[in-house]
Amino acid sequence: MAELTHIIDSEVFLAFSTYATIVVLKMMLMSPMTAYFRFTRKCFANMEDTGMAKTPEDKKRMLRVDPDVERVRRCHQNDLENIIPFVVIGLLYTLTGPDLSTALLHFRVFVGSRLFHTVAYILPLPQPSRAVTFLIGLVTTSSMASRVLMTALYL
Amino acid sequence: MAELTHIIDSEVFLAFSTYATIVVLKMMLMSPMTAYFRFTRKCFANMEDTGMAKTPEDKKRMLRVDPDVERVRRCHQNDLENIIPFVVIGLLYTLTGPDLSTALLHFRVFVGSRLFHTVAYILPLPQPSRAVTFLIGLVTTSSMASRVLMTALYL
Amino acid sequence: MAELTHIIDSEVFLAFSTYATIVVLKMMLMSPMTAYFRFTRKCFANMEDTGMAKTPEDKKRMLRVDPDVERVRRCHQNDLENIIPFVVIGLLYTLTGPDLSTALLHFRVFVGSRLFHTVAYILPLPQPSRAVTFLIGLVTTSSMASRVLMTALYL
Repeated sequence: MAELTHIIDSEVFLAFSTYATIVVLKMMLMSPMTAYFRFTRKCFANMEDTGMAKTPEDKKRMLRVDPDVERVRRCHQNDLENIIPFVVIGLLYTLTGPDLSTALLHFRVFVGSRLFHTVAYILPLPQPSRAVTFLIGLVTTSSMASRVLMTALYL
Repeated sequence: MAELTHIIDSEVFLAFSTYATIVVLKMMLMSPMTAYFRFTRKCFANMEDTGMAKTPEDKKRMLRVDPDVERVRRCHQNDLENIIPFVVIGLLYTLTGPDLSTALLHFRVFVGSRLFHTVAYILPLPQPSRAVTFLIGLVTTSSMASRVLMTALYL
Repeated sequence: MAELTHIIDSEVFLAFSTYATIVVLKMMLMSPMTAYFRFTRKCFANMEDTGMAKTPEDKKRMLRVDPDVERVRRCHQNDLENIIPFVVIGLLYTLTGPDLSTALLHFRVFVGSRLFHTVAYILPLPQPSRAVTFLIGLVTTSSMASRVLMTALYL
């Protein structure tokens, strides 16, 4: 296990583990948030979820689409589309042996941009706040990807 | 390659590889299952997929939303939202060097909960079976994430 | 950091890093492509995105579902459902120490199949071109998964 200890002890890897875990936990929080909005808006996708209804008509009425629920779900989907690529490319980037300060800059900017993105999406804040936070995340991941390709290119 | 051999030979890593592969394969099975429901229900999302129809009216009629297909797709989406975080955080957790028995407990509970979740979603079973299996998975991944953050925290 | 250097220097790992990065970047390109179609079709999902509209009626008219936008989004979703499993299982497969030529075959076939899949989905090409490229990707990932399970099985 000496090698594992070495990997997990490099500061860049520790930083990656920390920021990746934080941003994945943030993404996972979108599920309970969706559930919260489904219960408060009484809006469900499955008949078996409408147990709080008393009559069959009430049950059917709860099988609907609610704009607040859809907003949280779009935010969750945007997280999947952006945070997963960050984690994959960030891991490979970490293994290319970048400077600690450069790596920390990438990790912090990405995680910060995604936290602001969620706030901008859910409140919502006026555009272009959501578009800008989305783009910052995209550029950060692309910057790490370019280093992976420059260091590891083997076609 | 000595180091790679060491990593792949640690029992926790072997267990992680096994359970991660099994649960990702389970997730991948949702695609053929969606295709199966689309063909048996004759319900498609793209005009070019309706080749089995004989008349243009039949083609248009097949471009519809079917509740069984949507149920499988929601189950697939829930897998993406939960199994990917498990894989990411599970890998980092594995690298923190946990006890084999503790790690196996986490991996087995998570994979078991997701197998039951799929059964509960597709049949469907009455609630709260689906909610409970979902929550067990969420708690398991969160437990691994807390160990990663306690071991590797570097902000 | 000797071990990290060793890992990142094995040719199979370099090849995996390259192909995984390329195919994840391809997936990330679907977001700007969705934005492009949303702006050219004037079709948005959030009220705050309709800033280009002049009157409140125009804003409401832009909150609609467009078939071209939905097609790009389905393609993006299919990428998430297939490329992420490839990356996860491909990483574990890489760590099992496969032959370089066998590994390259898997990586190239998968990435090639997904590039063609996107072309087949967006143009669109007549079926079964999209179905075949999808299946090739599924079989490639399953082949890597079977090697992981045969090498690492630990239940």
